[in-house]
Amino acid sequence: MIVDIINKKRLGEELSFHELDTFFNGYLEGKVKDYQMSSLLMAICIQGMSEEETFALTKVFIDSGDTLDLSFLHAITVDKHSTGGIGDKTTLIIAPIVASLGVPVLKMSGRGLGYTGGTIDKLESIPGFRIDLSEEEVMHQVQDIGIVITGQTASLAPMDKKIYALRDVTGTVSSIPLIASSIMSKKIAGGADKILIDIKVGNGALLQTKEDAEKLSDLVIKIGKVYQKEVHTIISDMDTPLGYCIGNSLEVMEAMKVLKGEERDNNLTKLCLELASEMLCMSKGVPKEDAMDMVRQSIQSGDAYQKFLELVDAQHGNLKNLSVSKKVKVLKASKSGKIVGISAIELGKLSVSLGAGRVSKEDAIDYGVGIELLVQVGDIIKKGDSLAKIYYTKAPRLQRLEDIFLIK
Amino acid sequence: MIVDIINKKRLGEELSFHELDTFFNGYLEGKVKDYQMSSLLMAICIQGMSEEETFALTKVFIDSGDTLDLSFLHAITVDKHSTGGIGDKTTLIIAPIVASLGVPVLKMSGRGLGYTGGTIDKLESIPGFRIDLSEEEVMHQVQDIGIVITGQTASLAPMDKKIYALRDVTGTVSSIPLIASSIMSKKIAGGADKILIDIKVGNGALLQTKEDAEKLSDLVIKIGKVYQKEVHTIISDMDTPLGYCIGNSLEVMEAMKVLKGEERDNNLTKLCLELASEMLCMSKGVPKEDAMDMVRQSIQSGDAYQKFLELVDAQHGNLKNLSVSKKVKVLKASKSGKIVGISAIELGKLSVSLGAGRVSKEDAIDYGVGIELLVQVGDIIKKGDSLAKIYYTKAPRLQRLEDIFLIK
Repeated sequence: MIVDIINKKRLGEELSFHELDTFFNGYLEGKVKDYQMSSLLMAICIQGMSEEETFALTKVFIDSGDTLDLSFLHAITVDKHSTGGIGDKTTLIIAPIVASLGVPVLKMSGRGLGYTGGTIDKLESIPGFRIDLSEEEVMHQVQDIGIVITGQTASLAPMDKKIYALRDVTGTVSSIPLIASSIMSKKIAGGADKILIDIKVGNGALLQTKEDAEKLSDLVIKIGKVYQKEVHTIISDMDTPLGYCIGNSLEVMEAMKVLKGEERDNNLTKLCLELASEMLCMSKGVPKEDAMDMVRQSIQSGDAYQKFLELVDAQHGNLKNLSVSKKVKVLKASKSGKIVGISAIELGKLSVSLGAGRVSKEDAIDYGVGIELLVQVGDIIKKGDSLAKIYYTKAPRLQRLEDIFLIK
Repeated sequence: MIVDIINKKRLGEELSFHELDTFFNGYLEGKVKDYQMSSLLMAICIQGMSEEETFALTKVFIDSGDTLDLSFLHAITVDKHSTGGIGDKTTLIIAPIVASLGVPVLKMSGRGLGYTGGTIDKLESIPGFRIDLSEEEVMHQVQDIGIVITGQTASLAPMDKKIYALRDVTGTVSSIPLIASSIMSKKIAGGADKILIDIKVGNGALLQTKEDAEKLSDLVIKIGKVYQKEVHTIISDMDTPLGYCIGNSLEVMEAMKVLKGEERDNNLTKLCLELASEMLCMSKGVPKEDAMDMVRQSIQSGDAYQKFLELVDAQHGNLKNLSVSKKVKVLKASKSGKIVGISAIELGKLSVSLGAGRVSKEDAIDYGVGIELLVQVGDIIKKGDSLAKIYYTKAPRLQRLEDIFLIK
């Protein structure tokens, strides 16, 4: 029976809800083995799944755990998700912004895996910051200060969690229907009324082409419709890292700079403005232009930064002790020219090799290491100019500089 | 690195010898996990392998163990392999035939898995028959009486053995390059000069279409060339079971009847004549027509049967105690007409459900159960005529008779 289901998908046939339910729940119960699940996942990766199958699998994932009820917030709640990128600290920025504008934020975030960092890892770089709040604490805090960011509880879509870990080590991550089911099951179980998804595309992302990003966008919107959830998507570039910093403490520091209005007009600030105003539109129904103004105002007034400090305080973080490694190496340009590319994937690999990310799930993270870019795409530089600072604890094994910075 | 190899094959790219070697030997060493191997195997099943990859994988399999040297036999040795079918007892028949004609037979056979029985299981239904001969005993016996049939030693292509077991439970059996590598690695390691492969095609076989059978034929011949081994293939039907009996003791009894010349002109006897004469041509270089005559003569003279008795005797089998279950149920036709089909796959399933085969590798076999067909395709029957006898120990749960016998 189990093997028959795998064979069916191997041949490219459609699986019924009953077959998916039997197979995936059999996995949770231990009747279906890891090696059978990975075989089916690979068949799905290559042969694909129909929309009906994707809806069915999403339902199986959701039904494997609890669904939160957020009606007590008496607001239109909006959850935001990013498919993951290098230097992506947008959650740390836009969550305080929209919370300061009256949109309640109850965010359950994941840890990083692969070359992309996780919001939870970044927050943990703030000494003392608690990410293991109980459901009761979460509910209290969001009512109290309008914002909470915590780790994913085991009770929401636990099947997705187990399968995601297997996908990561079996080369079965890059499947649009699997990505869509994984994201949407967590978001729907999370209970928000509306969902905003930032789909990354580029060498530092799960998806490499705009075409694939559009397919994923189309699919998550359709899954949302099945559950009467309005889903908006933004497709954003991940050939270049977001902002200047990669690494946990460094990214928190950069987020604080943006919240204080000290950074502007780079790819990070532009994306944050876009995402935060979109969340505001979705929750409050204000026109986009007005929402943009409100977001800018929340930064200029200091409200957004204040909300960030409230968040850190509520979750016992101590910003005074936030620090980066004292050991610094500066990368210098070996020739003059114009910077036409800064490779997200190469910087992601470098950051993981420094210890800022995990190679396997058990690895500990070195919060103080990372990369600070000193240049942006488009800058004109001279030979010998500083390109980046590397914060390290163990002497780094650097890639060839030409793989990271494309200078013409 | 391991995941990169899987991803490469997922995308349909070609793997190098080094990548295949790293991955598969990593599996033997425990560095690559079952769930990673099954994921790669599924990617191979769907995306295929080039000839170069298939040659490389075959080499990796062969190099995982020993290679036998049969030069001490001072003959052109021919090994025969069947891709497996329902009621396939041809080895039990042709091995004594060719041995009686001076072609040394050193056969290492497998156990049954799936719906097809294994030669070793069949021989074990003869009380006392030893199938665990040491390499020394094997060499002595083949020199002494010119024939030995034993279980596969762990020293030949052990990697194939481990991977075959995984393929069976992960829906990754039906891949022509994987089938070719698996067969050829065992046969090449077995040391024979020439190899005859009986490729089954039909509902009771691994391969369902003539086209696939021809692809496999083409591939095994090409692999043979790499190792300077002459490979001949025969493509034979497996929509209908071979002969009248399915089940271990029953099949030994039927094989003995054929060797005594008591059966003729059915699909089993025809195939045995074809295979045995082909082996004779390959080993002795006699023309096909002469070989056919020699095979017929070996049966008529009693030499073939005598060789079978020598084989059983040498391996401590006691034919007097060979028996089938006393509990018999007769299947009767529910309508009159002409038998236009007898389904191999349905009879295979029935035989496994009776206990004649294994559902999982740990299952014990009930040697005395099985099915004896009383009719052949083409027979005209009347309602109420007996179609088959079911030998059982536990009351069988029968399929619908119309699924097994197609009467028009």
